[in-house]
Amino acid sequence: MANNSDTWFHDSIKLLTYNRNQRVWSIIVTIFGDLAGTPGDRISGAALSRITEPMSIKPEAMRVALHRLRNDDWIDSHKEGRSSFYGLTRFGLEQSTAARPRIYAREVDLPSQWQLCALEPGGGPKGQRARDMRHRGFVAVLPGLFLGPVGAAALPDSLVFHGAAQEIPAWVQEKIATPEITQAYGDLERALDRFSVSLLDAPALSPHQVATLRSIIVHIWRRALLSHPDLPQAFFGEGWRGGACRIKVMDVLDRLGRPQAAQL
Amino acid sequence: MANNSDTWFHDSIKLLTYNRNQRVWSIIVTIFGDLAGTPGDRISGAALSRITEPMSIKPEAMRVALHRLRNDDWIDSHKEGRSSFYGLTRFGLEQSTAARPRIYAREVDLPSQWQLCALEPGGGPKGQRARDMRHRGFVAVLPGLFLGPVGAAALPDSLVFHGAAQEIPAWVQEKIATPEITQAYGDLERALDRFSVSLLDAPALSPHQVATLRSIIVHIWRRALLSHPDLPQAFFGEGWRGGACRIKVMDVLDRLGRPQAAQL
Repeated sequence: MANNSDTWFHDSIKLLTYNRNQRVWSIIVTIFGDLAGTPGDRISGAALSRITEPMSIKPEAMRVALHRLRNDDWIDSHKEGRSSFYGLTRFGLEQSTAARPRIYAREVDLPSQWQLCALEPGGGPKGQRARDMRHRGFVAVLPGLFLGPVGAAALPDSLVFHGAAQEIPAWVQEKIATPEITQAYGDLERALDRFSVSLLDAPALSPHQVATLRSIIVHIWRRALLSHPDLPQAFFGEGWRGGACRIKVMDVLDRLGRPQAAQL
Repeated sequence: MANNSDTWFHDSIKLLTYNRNQRVWSIIVTIFGDLAGTPGDRISGAALSRITEPMSIKPEAMRVALHRLRNDDWIDSHKEGRSSFYGLTRFGLEQSTAARPRIYAREVDLPSQWQLCALEPGGGPKGQRARDMRHRGFVAVLPGLFLGPVGAAALPDSLVFHGAAQEIPAWVQEKIATPEITQAYGDLERALDRFSVSLLDAPALSPHQVATLRSIIVHIWRRALLSHPDLPQAFFGEGWRGGACRIKVMDVLDRLGRPQAAQL
């Protein structure tokens, strides 16, 4: 019985961890955002290991990542006896809280107004400014032309235009829904579909096993989301699966349930 | 006395015709739009010659231009005895009527909404598409990015965005208020300022003399206007004299008065 349960769990991990090259510190950010996002929530070092070991994250990689996140003032720790306990700092909590609506919303409430910004031609290194604009929440439509939510702050000296798109031709959709993003959602949806079926026969899972599975799913979802701003479907084109993935992510998370930090 | 009057008139012509390389057919379009824009208005060939000769337009150039405008269905003519009479066709009247509000408005009533359009990259020859967009009422902000009134129709397959500019940096103003346009308005304003003073001592002028002076002024004004769409001051920058020129053009036209077509 324990064997069956372990097999199911490891098959599920295998199914969901198709996406390699995940950064360990980024996975820890996901775990704390998902499971310890309330002030005062703490996760012990032992629990963190139990959650991350099934993802093949090595203890040494874990220590390096926790060190980095402490240096970045994202996470702090304290000792109780021989155990270490970790939690989000005030800064980490703020960042997590800011990201949460976009990650966990069941429906995206899209504004009717958007921002189209043109960078000053020759105003700086192109690649660097394009990355900078992406970090500010924009997506490139043309070299030097970016689309984003009204709240995003464009680089200085940009032409900033607020309004709504009247016509979105196919070349714009292809520019926004790049092959990489389209494939990321395609891969995620396939994994979710298989996992959703597999969940029907799920054995009883420990809180740590649930935490592992949730963290993997939320992490892939979060990485896909962060690669583009929320935009109306019309900007992405008909083949866009971002909305379908949102429904499926929320469904499996609901079915897995969310362990309390205190249970871990 | 007649001598003094002639001197004043010819000095004024000299003052106002600083702008060479005007196309004769285009001047005729201005004359008919200004003086014969009501259905049924006719101007005789003799009157046209009296109006255009002081601008140093030769009879042969006049004949060629009238021929072209008849071929373009802009103007038609009929004979009464040995005299030819010219008037706008239905098409010419429509074009004139459409252009009139922009040319003669005392205040430009600017909408709050504009159109920012991005052409498909690699969608066709750049120079030709840019000219095409200008003819459609747009001004280039960047290669492939155009600003225009909401009513203008962008080329097919463009990203079309309706809204309002929130920030207009200096490089956009310099792109819209090009040195050529800025100089055109600067030259016009200087000529109008001198002519305005000179008008204080104007002798009695014949309807044909008034027609000549009006036509020259309206023509320079019309050419300057047609080189850019009407946009809020903020798009042009602080040194922009388009608004000042509008006030000064309307002032001297008011003071000159408008002869009836029947008087010519």
